[in-house]
Amino acid sequence: MPSIFSKIIKGDIPCHHIAETEHSLAFLDIMPLVNGHVLVVPKKEVDELFDLDEATLNDLMRLSRKVSFAIKKSVPCKRIGIAVIGLEVPHAHIHLVPLNTVNDINFTQPKLQPTQQALEAMARLIRSNL
Amino acid sequence: MPSIFSKIIKGDIPCHHIAETEHSLAFLDIMPLVNGHVLVVPKKEVDELFDLDEATLNDLMRLSRKVSFAIKKSVPCKRIGIAVIGLEVPHAHIHLVPLNTVNDINFTQPKLQPTQQALEAMARLIRSNL
Repeated sequence: MPSIFSKIIKGDIPCHHIAETEHSLAFLDIMPLVNGHVLVVPKKEVDELFDLDEATLNDLMRLSRKVSFAIKKSVPCKRIGIAVIGLEVPHAHIHLVPLNTVNDINFTQPKLQPTQQALEAMARLIRSNL
Repeated sequence: MPSIFSKIIKGDIPCHHIAETEHSLAFLDIMPLVNGHVLVVPKKEVDELFDLDEATLNDLMRLSRKVSFAIKKSVPCKRIGIAVIGLEVPHAHIHLVPLNTVNDINFTQPKLQPTQQALEAMARLIRSNL
């Protein structure tokens, strides 16, 4: 069965699109730790990040860097934290999380549930800063 | 003033060495979240990961991948989590953390304080699995 991210990549599930390359896609996490939390995924369905081939991994990092700079311009924060955990969805994904404190990237915290309107406004803002 | 990581790279402060390339160094975190927690740093002192030039970033990821596989062979875990936070030391560093639960990569948790002997045994074990 395709992962939820493969369904998003295929367009079967909509997303708040931020940016993409031929091999990678960045979109908003709809249950963010903090507002501006973005996921960057390879279009190829591979479970663990380091099982990606080097070219795809480098492409994913290149897109993550570009999106990270745009988030930083969009959301008041000290820096953009990065996390790869992957205990829930078996499709490699990089979390980009605007940080003010270390607790902002604590995945045991309850997630936010922004409205679709708030998510779309955030996606538009980040895209405008790419 | 050079960062604590620059002092380690220069050899002024000892470390439990795991592996290195011309541009990157991997060593044990001496206050790990869980046993087997490794730091991978660029030898160049740059504060934020995404401010590294692309070649250095790719080198750092290549070393992180290699070390990640060795940690996985050394420590019972479901997978290796990755985190970049950087609110404390202004020298980019990647945390590689063996994960069994998401709380294993929660940086608000108290850190472990293994003995020098335990750290050296862990470093030896991970090096033997490179």
